[in-house]
Amino acid sequence: MKTVPVQCLRSICEQVFSACGASPQETEILKHELIESSLMGIDTHGVVLLSQYVFEVRDKTIRPGAPFTIVRETPGTAVVDCGFNFGLVSARRIADLVVQKARSVQIASVVSQRTHHVARLGSHVQKLADEGFIGLGYVTASTQYGHRPLVAPWGGREGRFGTNPLAYAVPTRNLPIVFDMSTAMTSQGRVRACIRKGEPMPEGYIQDGAGRPTTDPKDLYGSPPGSILPFGFGLGHKGYGLALLTEIMAGTLAGRAVDRNDLKDHYSNQLCLIALDPEGFCGREEFYDLMDELSRYITDTPPAPPFSEVVLPGTLERVTCEKRLREGIPIDDQGWEHMKKAAALVGVEIEG
Amino acid sequence: MKTVPVQCLRSICEQVFSACGASPQETEILKHELIESSLMGIDTHGVVLLSQYVFEVRDKTIRPGAPFTIVRETPGTAVVDCGFNFGLVSARRIADLVVQKARSVQIASVVSQRTHHVARLGSHVQKLADEGFIGLGYVTASTQYGHRPLVAPWGGREGRFGTNPLAYAVPTRNLPIVFDMSTAMTSQGRVRACIRKGEPMPEGYIQDGAGRPTTDPKDLYGSPPGSILPFGFGLGHKGYGLALLTEIMAGTLAGRAVDRNDLKDHYSNQLCLIALDPEGFCGREEFYDLMDELSRYITDTPPAPPFSEVVLPGTLERVTCEKRLREGIPIDDQGWEHMKKAAALVGVEIEG
Repeated sequence: MKTVPVQCLRSICEQVFSACGASPQETEILKHELIESSLMGIDTHGVVLLSQYVFEVRDKTIRPGAPFTIVRETPGTAVVDCGFNFGLVSARRIADLVVQKARSVQIASVVSQRTHHVARLGSHVQKLADEGFIGLGYVTASTQYGHRPLVAPWGGREGRFGTNPLAYAVPTRNLPIVFDMSTAMTSQGRVRACIRKGEPMPEGYIQDGAGRPTTDPKDLYGSPPGSILPFGFGLGHKGYGLALLTEIMAGTLAGRAVDRNDLKDHYSNQLCLIALDPEGFCGREEFYDLMDELSRYITDTPPAPPFSEVVLPGTLERVTCEKRLREGIPIDDQGWEHMKKAAALVGVEIEG
Repeated sequence: MKTVPVQCLRSICEQVFSACGASPQETEILKHELIESSLMGIDTHGVVLLSQYVFEVRDKTIRPGAPFTIVRETPGTAVVDCGFNFGLVSARRIADLVVQKARSVQIASVVSQRTHHVARLGSHVQKLADEGFIGLGYVTASTQYGHRPLVAPWGGREGRFGTNPLAYAVPTRNLPIVFDMSTAMTSQGRVRACIRKGEPMPEGYIQDGAGRPTTDPKDLYGSPPGSILPFGFGLGHKGYGLALLTEIMAGTLAGRAVDRNDLKDHYSNQLCLIALDPEGFCGREEFYDLMDELSRYITDTPPAPPFSEVVLPGTLERVTCEKRLREGIPIDDQGWEHMKKAAALVGVEIEG
C-alpha cells in the first residue's frame, strides 16, 4: 500500500489523459472526478480507474473527443448520444444539459445512449444540487452486449441486472445532501476481493447456480454460475423493485442505441438524471429554510449504540476527504502497478 | 372473520360516504379506491379504512367537499392545497393534474399541502401509468403536529420519520408494472398486531428506547418509547437514505402549509407525484417494444427454490384481485364491527 499526495495524482491524471487524446477540458473533468472519488474514500470509483480507461482507449471502446449529440428533445426532456467518449465526460455534459433545461422549465430529465463508465453516480446528482436543484439519478449497464448480468431478480436464480445504483442530492444553504446506493447486496469487486483473500462472503449476499444461499464467493463463478442477490436480505423484493426501476429509467427510457452494430462489443453505462427546481414548488428560500429545520431535526436525534451521532448522507465522505487532502490517497500495490503500466502505454513515466 | 361480497361493500361505501356529505364524484372515488385495495389483498389500505374516515369526518379533520386549490404553478410543476378533503379524493385530483401537465410538457410533478390520508400510494402512481406515463410517487406524514414519528434515522434511537413509502408504475402494452414499498422495516399496524396476538416481532425490525435491538413489540411503547428501524437490516443506512428522500420530496418541497394554525391538530399525508412521458424520451412505441422485451427477459428467469416463478411487481396483487372478485373480501370481526358502528353514526344500517 502506498499513500500518494493528491498533487502527484493530479499530475499523473493530467499527463495520462492528455496523452490518450483527451482535450484539455475532458482531461480536467476526468482528473477532477477520479480524484474527488478517491478523496471521499470511494476507492473503487477513484484514480484506480485510470488504468482501465487507458486500456479501453487503446481498444477503442472509449473514444476521446467523441461528440455529444442530442438525439431527441423537448423543453424538459432529452435523449443524448454520448458516442462512447469517457463516461465521466459524458456525465458532466448530461448534468449540464439537465441543469440548463431545469433552469428554464423547473423540472427536466435527460437519459443517455452509448455512454461509457460513468463511475460514481453520487457525483453527477451532486452537480445538480450544486446548481440549486434536487437531483435524482439512475445508472444501468447494458447487459445485452456480452456482459453477463450478475444480480438476480427476487425469486430467480440467474443474473438479470447490474448493480443498478440510484442516487439523489439535495441543495441546502450549506453543503448538499448526497446519497448513492446500489440496489444489489454487493458488487462483483467485493466478491473478487473475498476470493483473493480466501474469505467467505457475509450471509445473504449471493446464491449459487442452483439458487441456494451460499457464502462461498467462488460460487458466483461456478458451473452453472451463481448470482448476487437484490438488496434487502429476506425482503429482497424491495431491492428487486428498485433495480427494475433503475433499469427502466436509465435503460428502457433511453431506447435502443442509434447503431446497434456499434454496440455489439461495447459496454454501455446509461445514465438518467432528473432535476427539480424548488422555485417551481414551494420557492427556493422557503425550501432552504425547511431544509435547515429538517437537517437539524435529523442530526439532533440521540444516537443508538454503537453510533456516536446521526449524520446526513454525504457527511462521512466529506470527513474522509479532508483527511486525505492532508495525508494523501492510499493506493494498493496492484492498483499502483496497473497505473504505471497504463501510463507507460501512452508514454508517461510514473516514478515510485 | 367474514367474507363479504364485493357488491355488498360497494353499496356500503356508497351509502356511508354519501351520508358523510361526500359528493357523488367523491363517493365514487372513495368506493373505487378502498375496494380496489381490498381486492388486491392490501387490507390495511382497504375498506376497513371506512370507519376511520367516518370518525374523522365527524371530528372535522376530514372535510368532504373541500376545494382543491393550486397554490403555486409552472407549466411542469405545482403545489396544491387539498383543504383536508378525503385524501383519496385529493390524490385523484393530484394525479389528474400531473397527467394534464405531463401531456403538455412531457415531464411534470405536483406536491400537496393539507392532504388527508392518501392510503395506497401504488394506486396513485398507477393512475399515471394508466394514462401512458411513468409515475414516481412519495408520501410522507407530517409529524410536527402531534403524531410521534416512529421510524428512526440510521444510527439514531428516536423516531424521526413515518413509514415514508415510495412507489412507481410503468405503462406497458399489457398491464402496468406497479411497485410500492415502505422505507421502514415495518408498520405500526404490524407491531400492534403482534402485541394483540402475544407474538414477538422478527429480529431487526424495531429497537427499544435505548436504541437496543429488540423483538418485544411492547418496547415500541416503552418508556422511553422505542422506534421502528429503517429498511435494510444491517444495511439500514440505505432505507434511511430513501426515507429522507421521501421526506424531502413529499414534505419539504411542498413548503409550509398556508395556514399553520389550521394544521395544529391535523394529520397531513403529503403526496408527491412525478410523471414522465416516454414520448419525450425514446418515443412511446419504442418504449413499449423495449418494455415487452424487458418483461419477458425478467419473467423468463429460472426460479430459485422455493419460488416457482419470477414475477413483475404488481402481478401477485392481480391474482388476489381475481380470486376476491369471485369469492368476496375477508374482513375480520373487529373491522366489521367498526364499520357497522361508523355507518350507524351517519344513519346507515349494515346488516350481518
